[in-house]
Amino acid sequence: MPDLPAIDGQTRLYAVLGDPVRQVRAPGLLNPLLAEARRRAVVVPVHVRAAELPGVFRLLRDIVNLDGLFVTVPHKTAMAGLADRLSPAASRIGAVNVVRRDADGRWTGDNFDGVGFVRGLAKAGHTVVDVAVWMAGAGGAGCAVAAAVLDAGARTVAIHDVDATRTAELVARLHRHFPGRARVAEPADLAVAGLVVNATPLGLRPEDPLPVDPHLLPAGAAVADIIMEPHTTALLRAAADRGLAVHHGIHMLECQVECYRGFFDW
Amino acid sequence: MPDLPAIDGQTRLYAVLGDPVRQVRAPGLLNPLLAEARRRAVVVPVHVRAAELPGVFRLLRDIVNLDGLFVTVPHKTAMAGLADRLSPAASRIGAVNVVRRDADGRWTGDNFDGVGFVRGLAKAGHTVVDVAVWMAGAGGAGCAVAAAVLDAGARTVAIHDVDATRTAELVARLHRHFPGRARVAEPADLAVAGLVVNATPLGLRPEDPLPVDPHLLPAGAAVADIIMEPHTTALLRAAADRGLAVHHGIHMLECQVECYRGFFDW
Repeated sequence: MPDLPAIDGQTRLYAVLGDPVRQVRAPGLLNPLLAEARRRAVVVPVHVRAAELPGVFRLLRDIVNLDGLFVTVPHKTAMAGLADRLSPAASRIGAVNVVRRDADGRWTGDNFDGVGFVRGLAKAGHTVVDVAVWMAGAGGAGCAVAAAVLDAGARTVAIHDVDATRTAELVARLHRHFPGRARVAEPADLAVAGLVVNATPLGLRPEDPLPVDPHLLPAGAAVADIIMEPHTTALLRAAADRGLAVHHGIHMLECQVECYRGFFDW
Repeated sequence: MPDLPAIDGQTRLYAVLGDPVRQVRAPGLLNPLLAEARRRAVVVPVHVRAAELPGVFRLLRDIVNLDGLFVTVPHKTAMAGLADRLSPAASRIGAVNVVRRDADGRWTGDNFDGVGFVRGLAKAGHTVVDVAVWMAGAGGAGCAVAAAVLDAGARTVAIHDVDATRTAELVARLHRHFPGRARVAEPADLAVAGLVVNATPLGLRPEDPLPVDPHLLPAGAAVADIIMEPHTTALLRAAADRGLAVHHGIHMLECQVECYRGFFDW
């Protein structure tokens, strides 16, 4: 087991906000790094329900030794509306996955999900250049992944979500930056996809339905999940059973660590 | 260094609320015990200013994985008014140093400061039985210490505080349980004291004035501080220089650990 930070009265806090929160991997990944870097700081999970997020954030601002937040499902989009300032990336995506307290007391949000996802894919040998991407999920993570894969050279992104309104909104937002390269997914899109991405929370719980019917996954496609816990989701297991290349959610987080260091000045 | 708890998404939280908070010793003392007991829980310092305490407590109730609070200066009295229920001891003292979330969602406060203080004295060989006690500080910790030393058999407690109103209130409250044995301190009281206690926050900061003029400390008295950081306060140093027995603040906390285990069901 790696060294962990000793906690005392001078320890600074970072909270991971989610609902649920039991699956989050940031504390386990980042606390050993903080200890190694001799930062007197600790990352802890904080389970907050969506209805309470605005009130909780207002009051987290009053905790003097709290320096930043990691934001996960289902709070990424809502938190973008609560931060005082957004980075250009977070603003374009409409969602944040990190928020920090600046020296002037204001809170700045940024989003490294998409960058982390694309870096993780590249490290595993999967390129997105000129690839047709099919993605389930138009929430906070989906927004980030879609913008990042288009930014990295994907030919098109076809987006499927149960919420038609937010799917249309995401497609419209992507159009402004990547004209003609994002659309609401139609049945034919899955059949030609080179990369299939699950950016929904489906797969966190054993009883969740699959985000896409595995029998429709095209031969030769790579299948990526953004869910970290379980490590291998039911979708990835079904894809592997069909002989497809799979890509685990943990890589998206691992490849964000350098971004976090810069953002939080660790 | 003892093992520390590995923090993951399933970790339960306990917060130490104070202002300042840099001096608190509970995380350093309790986290290794939690790790040893294989509890997936961590105690973290949370710096909250007095004006924000009611709002922050409301927020903390909404954090699903937060199970309890440790309460320190200056919040012990205010938190007694915010908890949903108080133990008989906390109710008598009018201050809490621990609050836990019960199964029904309500928060119960208790106070082990006084018990811990008296146990610590006894362990160090100082009895309070039939002793005249002089105490500076009528705040949360002072209330707890005064009630506990009287409960343990002190002859009298003379209480000095800059705030005459709260001193009178504490004396009145103690009268109900220990008639005739508590009073507002007068100059003559210090000269006959067998035990002198600092229960004010004076000594936390290097620039603080002493809570009592060390030249007035009677020969033969023991001098106790409830401040834990610095370990040896300026008052204890001055007392030791004059050849008096001294008793450090850390003992009060160490002797509360068994109480915490019972209260939080660790």
